[in-house]
Amino acid sequence: MSGQIETFSIEFNIPFFTGKETKYIKDAVKNAKISGNGLYTQKCQSFFEEKYGFKKCLLTSSCTDALEMAAILCDIKPGDEVIAPSYTFVSTVNAFILRGAKVVFCDSRSDHPGIDESKIESLITEKTKAIVVVHYAGVACDMDLVMDLANRNDIFVVEDAAQAIDNYYTGKDGIQKPLGAIGHLATFSFHETKNIISGEGGMLVVNDERFVKRAEIIWEKGTNRSAFFKGEVDKYGWVDIGSSFLPSEIIAAFLYAQLENLDKIQDKRKAIWNHYKEELGSLEQAGKIRLAYIPSFSTNNAHMFYLICKSMEERDDLIAYLKSEGIMAVFHYLSLHSSPYYKDKHDDRKLVNSDLYSNCLVRLPFYFKLSMNDQIKIQNAIKNFFMKN
Amino acid sequence: MSGQIETFSIEFNIPFFTGKETKYIKDAVKNAKISGNGLYTQKCQSFFEEKYGFKKCLLTSSCTDALEMAAILCDIKPGDEVIAPSYTFVSTVNAFILRGAKVVFCDSRSDHPGIDESKIESLITEKTKAIVVVHYAGVACDMDLVMDLANRNDIFVVEDAAQAIDNYYTGKDGIQKPLGAIGHLATFSFHETKNIISGEGGMLVVNDERFVKRAEIIWEKGTNRSAFFKGEVDKYGWVDIGSSFLPSEIIAAFLYAQLENLDKIQDKRKAIWNHYKEELGSLEQAGKIRLAYIPSFSTNNAHMFYLICKSMEERDDLIAYLKSEGIMAVFHYLSLHSSPYYKDKHDDRKLVNSDLYSNCLVRLPFYFKLSMNDQIKIQNAIKNFFMKN
Repeated sequence: MSGQIETFSIEFNIPFFTGKETKYIKDAVKNAKISGNGLYTQKCQSFFEEKYGFKKCLLTSSCTDALEMAAILCDIKPGDEVIAPSYTFVSTVNAFILRGAKVVFCDSRSDHPGIDESKIESLITEKTKAIVVVHYAGVACDMDLVMDLANRNDIFVVEDAAQAIDNYYTGKDGIQKPLGAIGHLATFSFHETKNIISGEGGMLVVNDERFVKRAEIIWEKGTNRSAFFKGEVDKYGWVDIGSSFLPSEIIAAFLYAQLENLDKIQDKRKAIWNHYKEELGSLEQAGKIRLAYIPSFSTNNAHMFYLICKSMEERDDLIAYLKSEGIMAVFHYLSLHSSPYYKDKHDDRKLVNSDLYSNCLVRLPFYFKLSMNDQIKIQNAIKNFFMKN
Repeated sequence: MSGQIETFSIEFNIPFFTGKETKYIKDAVKNAKISGNGLYTQKCQSFFEEKYGFKKCLLTSSCTDALEMAAILCDIKPGDEVIAPSYTFVSTVNAFILRGAKVVFCDSRSDHPGIDESKIESLITEKTKAIVVVHYAGVACDMDLVMDLANRNDIFVVEDAAQAIDNYYTGKDGIQKPLGAIGHLATFSFHETKNIISGEGGMLVVNDERFVKRAEIIWEKGTNRSAFFKGEVDKYGWVDIGSSFLPSEIIAAFLYAQLENLDKIQDKRKAIWNHYKEELGSLEQAGKIRLAYIPSFSTNNAHMFYLICKSMEERDDLIAYLKSEGIMAVFHYLSLHSSPYYKDKHDDRKLVNSDLYSNCLVRLPFYFKLSMNDQIKIQNAIKNFFMKN
């Protein structure tokens, strides 16, 4: 994780606003309903349920909160094990650790920073309760492999789809499914760095019918308030653990303005992504770098464009060079298995691909309003750097 | 807890907007910074630190989230005991139960729904790690008694000040202190039903210096990102458990518009409160009801006006009568010790005052724009009801 505070002539990320966000917020204010689970929350949830066939969606204050709901729904108890990639954001695993889980970290694929599905089976024990896969850069994990493992071992699958809005996986049967619709549970992020944003924000997707009722209770602070509003009980009370996972209607109103523009946003992002891929392809062909890769079973939601250098030194030099050219490029996660918090808790397995991406991956500026001129500047700067190296 | 969905000619609560909320949200959008911990978050936090002398404030997505941070900071582990009132919102205790605590419920005072401070000492055991007091209706608990007990027994005190913004406690030494500044930690709510609102929203106050650094880490998902931005470390990583407790700048911008109008809002609410107290005083003197009570050690922040009937039947009849007059009045908490979730976990102590308030308390409509005409209607309806009964 990195987070420079200087200003650049080309920033790494600039949030995009459709222009209707404050209009809808004003409308929520006018309706005098700004606490959670109002009209705009329901509009957003319905949008996802209808467009992607998710069984039940619940907006949350963050993807972290959605992951915490998932951990509670999986009934994680102290001593349970959860398998997750090491190359991910801390929230992927913190949510499970807060419930007492031991996290067993899995390496990344050699061709892509996503979890190496072929290594999961050897990590499963009698204590394994859940597998959390992360669709890194929005790119699908090989969900057939993951779901097959989970089903054979009676384990829950949580898709951390924080970056994976509007992306699809094609299984061996040739059927294309939206990411977030495959695992028992899935989580999305609307943090300002994502394709669709609400500042902070997230969503839990419940695909397994067994979880729906409890999810609503946990979302409403462990009360059966949802059942009360549906007229199923005559007063509501405390029936379970839970938290205040639901966001303000102000956030939901903002989000809805973004969702209305999903196609427009995605089209523009895909154009930017493709341009990077085409223009930097020659460097990849020359063996200088590896570029963002999309396996054949995944479509591309253009969340991020990254490249992989040959060493940490080269990567750091590239970031420094781009900075000298006014361009902000950033590295990404640091392997969680060797973090200050977890290094003494991790077994002694080396996770070489995770470390490789920690050391050698760099993300390029990527946002809706990135101009063609700026993109050409970035590409030329990268070409210049590798001509000299 | 109640939550009728009908509409009334006089609602129970109508959120008040100052007019500047969307202006500040637009400003946050214009600055292209809508994720957490930006300019407006800092403005809000500074407002509280400067006005009330709170050592360190951290905005959160909800008061629930602030309570969860408090539970983590108190290092609650499975088996630890936490003393809390039974007459409170579920989040007061859920936050501690999520960390594995056993909650030992304490009864309310006979003169007021707040925790009966005189009963706390007998509940303290070697396992007691924290006392959570709730300033019900914004009214102070007797904090000298609570802090003395805590200090003698090496126990942390968390003030659940969800309703207690801008209120004060006068200790035996005659010194007036703001609520939220006395316990080791304190939590506030900006839910739309509160005096100052942001839809959903809350704040953790850290008064004990020992907690400040860890609070910042837990707030930022268990990373030392705050230290990174202060230049104390050159990259940030995973160093602790944590969550995404910080709200979007959209929420903070909204909240700041409210805080600028705190005095105006408080003046109006106090006028409404005093009018209720004066006009319904004759019913109290006649022994028909008890009215909202402020002990001499507390000032009044006019969060809520309630009255206490002689029986549940009478209370329910009063609510029904007011409803027939187009007036929405509502009961409040149900004793947590006898909730579906906790009744088998509670020891067999009777908590008679908590049950009394659960059964007999009713809250009257209370909001900034409540007109004098409507207030007179409400008062007359209540007088009519008790003339007939």
